[in-house]
Amino acid sequence: MSAGFFKSRWVEAPEGVEQLDDTVLPAGFRAGGVPCGLKKDGKTDLGIVVSDSEETTSAILLTRNAAAAAPIRVCRDHLQQDSVRAVIVNSGNANAATGEQGMLDALAMRNETAQELNLVPEQVAVAETGVIGVPMDMESVLHGISGLAAGVWGEGAVPFSEAIMTTDKFPKRCTLTAGGITISAQAKGAGMIEPGYATMLCFVQTDAVVADPEPLLRAAVAESFERITVDGQMSTNDTVLFQASGISGLPLPEGLLEAVLLQLAIEVVRDGEGATRVGRIEVSGAKDPEEADLVARRIANSPLVKTALLGRDPNWGRIAQAAGAALAGADIGELGPDVIDADELAGEQPEAELALRLDRGDAISRIYFSDLTHEYIVINAEYTT
Amino acid sequence: MSAGFFKSRWVEAPEGVEQLDDTVLPAGFRAGGVPCGLKKDGKTDLGIVVSDSEETTSAILLTRNAAAAAPIRVCRDHLQQDSVRAVIVNSGNANAATGEQGMLDALAMRNETAQELNLVPEQVAVAETGVIGVPMDMESVLHGISGLAAGVWGEGAVPFSEAIMTTDKFPKRCTLTAGGITISAQAKGAGMIEPGYATMLCFVQTDAVVADPEPLLRAAVAESFERITVDGQMSTNDTVLFQASGISGLPLPEGLLEAVLLQLAIEVVRDGEGATRVGRIEVSGAKDPEEADLVARRIANSPLVKTALLGRDPNWGRIAQAAGAALAGADIGELGPDVIDADELAGEQPEAELALRLDRGDAISRIYFSDLTHEYIVINAEYTT
Repeated sequence: MSAGFFKSRWVEAPEGVEQLDDTVLPAGFRAGGVPCGLKKDGKTDLGIVVSDSEETTSAILLTRNAAAAAPIRVCRDHLQQDSVRAVIVNSGNANAATGEQGMLDALAMRNETAQELNLVPEQVAVAETGVIGVPMDMESVLHGISGLAAGVWGEGAVPFSEAIMTTDKFPKRCTLTAGGITISAQAKGAGMIEPGYATMLCFVQTDAVVADPEPLLRAAVAESFERITVDGQMSTNDTVLFQASGISGLPLPEGLLEAVLLQLAIEVVRDGEGATRVGRIEVSGAKDPEEADLVARRIANSPLVKTALLGRDPNWGRIAQAAGAALAGADIGELGPDVIDADELAGEQPEAELALRLDRGDAISRIYFSDLTHEYIVINAEYTT
Repeated sequence: MSAGFFKSRWVEAPEGVEQLDDTVLPAGFRAGGVPCGLKKDGKTDLGIVVSDSEETTSAILLTRNAAAAAPIRVCRDHLQQDSVRAVIVNSGNANAATGEQGMLDALAMRNETAQELNLVPEQVAVAETGVIGVPMDMESVLHGISGLAAGVWGEGAVPFSEAIMTTDKFPKRCTLTAGGITISAQAKGAGMIEPGYATMLCFVQTDAVVADPEPLLRAAVAESFERITVDGQMSTNDTVLFQASGISGLPLPEGLLEAVLLQLAIEVVRDGEGATRVGRIEVSGAKDPEEADLVARRIANSPLVKTALLGRDPNWGRIAQAAGAALAGADIGELGPDVIDADELAGEQPEAELALRLDRGDAISRIYFSDLTHEYIVINAEYTT
């Protein structure tokens, strides 16, 4: 059953996990989505997730971008991050680089949501995604919030996952069960992706009991959303929110959150702007994890490697060049095909596995990345934003 | 007269400079180029520059790529860098990632050239550019060297500048006179360009007296080749060689070397793989020069900014995002159009001037970059190397 969601060759489905109807949410959660008018094409653009359990625990990770958007500032400075009951999300406008008014707007979204749901404002998170530098159409948003709060919640996970999409070609979501608990997640992201320690938007709900969700989420994100790149860019709005209602009374099975986030992260790469293939580069034998990471990221973000992934060109020289550039000033010798596996660049698989073995220590890093295609340029150059 | 060479709006031609026939070399220098068979299409691929003056002073800057090619290692470890009399250069094969045999081949090229010219081997530099990881066809190269040494030298600057080209669309060279001295230069480069402290190949000759060329060259490169990026990549083979024969008995006019190298560096960007436009980003108000540089480079290498330059989209949000990513973890507020000049992205000029004003200090950095186009992807994905 689980194969449907865990599609990647690089994700091992935890034992006993089964897939549920993806309209289902874990006990204690409701969700919804409506079109409020921010997206010009009339698509769903405002979503909400609510936990009705007063025992809800949570953790949130936010972009480290120094020009962070208003909703990030609200969540950073005005949120009880360990007990988030609801999150209000819009797509179509990132509310970034919108100055003081942007902050007031993000706070107003939060306050209106709290009031409609009868929650404390500090327990409501805000996430936004879309164009940068355009004032929010708050009349539409506030009208949408009251509609949402009064709305239908039956199959809310579906309209919610649609409400958070921007240039995504497909929604990224799942509902799974394992060890007696249920976990669901919804993610979005296609461009401007190389997270600091979160990426784009991802929301995870479970009815498991999670006493201390913050280190758990941080570790899972470190091995998933922190290890992907589409275009080496870091968004002003990246957010990952994890909420646990505790209603099942059971613990979260080991490895489940990690597998869900890794599969979703790879989905984000697979749906990267213009992407046709996903590559994974493994750098081993580095001095320390930082060095392994530096080299792997330089390779994964190299436009020469990314075009080789598109062109099915097993050009290991481009990997050698990127590795040497990452360690500029050091001397790692003349890397050759004896230490670089690049054959799969030329293969037919949609997921190509590449490796570089250095001879400097024991550290390893893996980064997942997309190819660079004409479609990326069409999306980013030919439509004026 | 000088306008012909100093084409860029960002280069001020030094006073009194005049352009000479670009087949002319400064007193004391000879050059040449022949097809030796490395390029499959039979084009000129082996070149030489020789100074006949025993008083020749010189300086050379080499890539810092940790996987440096054999010729870089020869010049780094086996060259009298302050008195280089000749340089032998081939295109078509970078002699990189070629192991022990590559080192032997680069040394053989040097030794053969020294013997033919009756020079000390340690006064002969080697530079190579082309594909990585392919063994050198040394029979052709050695045969070419004896042909070169015996050959015609009359208009050698032209065949030499052709001999160093790879994916370049046009040769980059000049011969200028000012203050009684002559200076000539030849450069190549189109892809894999973001130097550490040199870029691609550039050779400069003058008959001026230059007692201490190394700091002069280093400073000029820091403001020219070190400030450009085509695709954020650092080559395994970057080399800049500056030779002064001293025959004129006159000093080098102030600012001349700097202007020549800046114009050539901008030519390299203009001829970047697939490039149709050149942008210059100026970041001011940074804490220190390193920070200014970090932000400017992140903007110049952002595929979102590069596609905006192509698409003539004045999208300052992409500049804000890249700046915020460069300073991840800090807080620079929500950058807006009041501190970002991005209008020229949308203009018709071939050279677009962009600016970002931070509010953190007095440091400034300027980086020159090309747009990201379909042609870049065609060049790098559709032809298997």
